[in-house]
Amino acid sequence: MRPAVVLFSGGLDSTTCLAVAREDGFAPHALAVRYGQRHARELDAAERVARMLGAPLKIVSLDLRAVGGSALTGDLEVPKDGVGGGIPVTYVPARNTVLLGLALGYAETLDAQDLYIGVNAIDYSGYPDCRPAFVEAFEKLANVATAAAVEGRARYRVHAPLLQLSKAQIIELGTRLGVPYAMTHSCYDPDPQGRACGRCDSCRLRAQGFREAGVPDPTVYSPR
Amino acid sequence: MRPAVVLFSGGLDSTTCLAVAREDGFAPHALAVRYGQRHARELDAAERVARMLGAPLKIVSLDLRAVGGSALTGDLEVPKDGVGGGIPVTYVPARNTVLLGLALGYAETLDAQDLYIGVNAIDYSGYPDCRPAFVEAFEKLANVATAAAVEGRARYRVHAPLLQLSKAQIIELGTRLGVPYAMTHSCYDPDPQGRACGRCDSCRLRAQGFREAGVPDPTVYSPR
Repeated sequence: MRPAVVLFSGGLDSTTCLAVAREDGFAPHALAVRYGQRHARELDAAERVARMLGAPLKIVSLDLRAVGGSALTGDLEVPKDGVGGGIPVTYVPARNTVLLGLALGYAETLDAQDLYIGVNAIDYSGYPDCRPAFVEAFEKLANVATAAAVEGRARYRVHAPLLQLSKAQIIELGTRLGVPYAMTHSCYDPDPQGRACGRCDSCRLRAQGFREAGVPDPTVYSPR
Repeated sequence: MRPAVVLFSGGLDSTTCLAVAREDGFAPHALAVRYGQRHARELDAAERVARMLGAPLKIVSLDLRAVGGSALTGDLEVPKDGVGGGIPVTYVPARNTVLLGLALGYAETLDAQDLYIGVNAIDYSGYPDCRPAFVEAFEKLANVATAAAVEGRARYRVHAPLLQLSKAQIIELGTRLGVPYAMTHSCYDPDPQGRACGRCDSCRLRAQGFREAGVPDPTVYSPR
């Protein structure tokens, strides 16, 4: 099986994405980035889920806090007032550009030509780097940025299989592929026991997705 | 003065690039990345040179060793046999994609729209991500990847003022702008005292540039 690199956080979307890569016939290599997340819980989940799915997991450390400008890297408060209009403060400047750049470098060392990213343009919470135009622009960049492409040994493709799916459709797809959603973690602001807050954008979108998909929500919520 | 982000290593090219950004009328903000270089000497030089030039310096840590695949991150030996054909082992997979991604994120937090990168397509040592096609593709990406661009608050430009210059022309330009080349550091494999090896690709291109420019080479070479 040809290798593919899957950007992976242990969350609902990226775990579904990994299952899709395998369904597409690839041997998925998960790449997680420790980028100064407020909670290490996300990476704990990534390790557990990758092990369960039998995918090798590589973790790269990157101190995005030094760049700043986001609630997810500690500069601003995570909002709890519901999913609003516009681009939220949980946006991390240029995050997916950097993450796909790392995935591209890793792919080149693995002789992989396929990158998977679980971005989503429907329930996408307003992030600019989760849109089709972004994915297409990165694919073009990848094919001029690397030795493997320039020397004709690779033609990179950026797969974003969740791009046009609603959260409910993602959950339906993953459920069909056997994704262990109970192990995945989505909350931006879990309690000390790692239970989901149930109130941040990510929790709200996830819970609504399970409701709309008619799939029982296995998430453990904080009683707070 | 409008801010600009300059990718900066304290080397000859990026220091010249910073001087050009200032000459262009920007207030340059230097961004250096600690990416698992074999030698910390490069960042020492970056700090000294940025201080001398009065530019704020931000250092971001990124463990590119985890991605692997390059002599510059410790996986392979730095070659000393002269500048050969093809893409050398000092190529770091997708490095400039990741570095420009970080510069883009930093620019967004500074409300800067201008990125400077000291890549060079002439004496470029064979790196694919030092070519005009790469710079153009990244600029296109930047303008769909960021909140500032999508909301119409920014139109990003990637400046690569050294792109079409020979090393000698870069040195002539920088000498005119008062770049303190004696403080800059280019060697891939310095000795324990920080003196340049004189034999790696980077040393050879630098020394040849000074010769061709007719500028005295201020580099301190190792007696080894």
